Order: sequence, then structure tokens, then C-alpha cells
Amino acid sequence: MPVMMELTRVVDCDLNDQHWIHLTEVQGTRTFTIVIGQVEAQVINRRLLEEPPFRPMTHQLLKNIVETLGGQFQDVVITELREHTYFAVVRIRVGDTVHTIDCRPSDGVAIAVHHSPILPIYIEENVLRSLTGL
Amino acid sequence: MPVMMELTRVVDCDLNDQHWIHLTEVQGTRTFTIVIGQVEAQVINRRLLEEPPFRPMTHQLLKNIVETLGGQFQDVVITELREHTYFAVVRIRVGDTVHTIDCRPSDGVAIAVHHSPILPIYIEENVLRSLTGL
Repeated sequence: MPVMMELTRVVDCDLNDQHWIHLTEVQGTRTFTIVIGQVEAQVINRRLLEEPPFRPMTHQLLKNIVETLGGQFQDVVITELREHTYFAVVRIRVGDTVHTIDCRPSDGVAIAVHHSPILPIYIEENVLRSLTGL
Repeated sequence: MPVMMELTRVVDCDLNDQHWIHLTEVQGTRTFTIVIGQVEAQVINRRLLEEPPFRPMTHQLLKNIVETLGGQFQDVVITELREHTYFAVVRIRVGDTVHTIDCRPSDGVAIAVHHSPILPIYIEENVLRSLTGL
């Protein structure tokens, strides 16, 4: 079962050039931390902290394209940990059909924060359990 | 009339942290240079020079999403220079319909280089003329 999470922190550590995001369980206390690239951290942070930019940035373009093609992003699910890499999907609804598309978790979260309200973010229970041991 | 261009160079100047791309007229000699962000320069360069990465990067995700929704990117057109900013569109074909979607030129070129062969890149004649005076 996917567990609903909330984006609670984006951390840029200039000292060691590491960047990560914290997700916290909505109906619980478990947390999940994932290391992401500098670019993705900037994109997410910028969107959370600042006014929308003058021109559409890439994840805004993605949203605009999906809506032009008649779709709506529905949610993001972090599905799996394999070979030290987290896998995720974005789900897009077009009419009665839901398309599930492979993505990096950082793109999924960046897409989520380009929606208002932010899209639901889920983590599969077994991924969360493997990390927290709870 | 849009003029077909070819991406001929991506320049990263570490000295002043400037990045730009050169486009050259396919059936002529005029060139066009546009300053882009570091991130976009990296994305375009990486795609031109290296093997596709293990996980889908953002512009690959964009392509995958459009194809999942039944569309195909057709081409990119740099349409206008307004208030020191170049405007562009990507055109997406879905069946007999072509959707035209506003984007930054750098996203347009990044999408183009994620196709094999690279998508056609056009510049409107008046934009090219205003720059080169030819």
C-alpha cells in the first residue's frame, strides 16, 4: 500500500555539495530522506520559495504540455529501491484512463510542487519500511 | 517564414559562467547565438556527447510523457525577441492536430536533442534578420 507523504524540507548543503529532500508521513511519524541533484533541489526550492518565474521553467512546461494534451497529473509514487537507486512514477489522468510513467523521484517531486495545491506524494509501504525499519 | 537552423555549438565559458548555443542556417550562412542557463547547457551537452543516462532525465521524461499520451514532438520554433528575451514554441502532433506550446528556447533545443535524429529547429525570419541585419 502506498503511504501518503508530505514534503517537509529541502536541504542544500554547500559544504559538501549534497542536496536532499525530507518527506514525512502524513498520518504518522516516519520520515524519508532522498539525495537529489543540485539542479532538482534548485528547481524545487525556487518553486516553493519564490514567485513563479517570468518564463515557464521545464517542469511548468511539462505541466502545460500535459494539460494541452488533455491530461492532468494525479500524483507521484516512489515505488522501489533497486541498486541504490530510488524509482518513482508519475500518474497522469486522461478522461477515465490513468497512465503510469517511470521517472526519477526528484522529477516527480518537482512536478508535484508545480501544482497548487501540491500533488499527493506517496511511498510504497515496503520501501518506507526497508528504510526506517518501522 | 521560419528558417531551418542546425545546432552547431554549445559553449560553456567557466571564466564568466556564461553558456550559449550557436545555431547555423541549414541553407545559408547566417548564425544565431543565444545565451542559456548553466543547467540547460549541461542537459544539451550531456545528451550530445554522452550515452543516455541510466534513469530518464527531465527532457527524456517529457518525451516519454508526450508519447504515452499519443503525441509526437514535431519541431521547435524560435518565434520572437521581446524585452531582451527570446520566445519559442514546441509543436506536438497528435493525430491530425498540431499543438503549439510556449517554451524557453533552451527547453526547445533540449527537447530537440533528445530525439534521434534531432528535431528540426527553426527561427522566424524577422528574428534572424533583426539579429544579423542580413
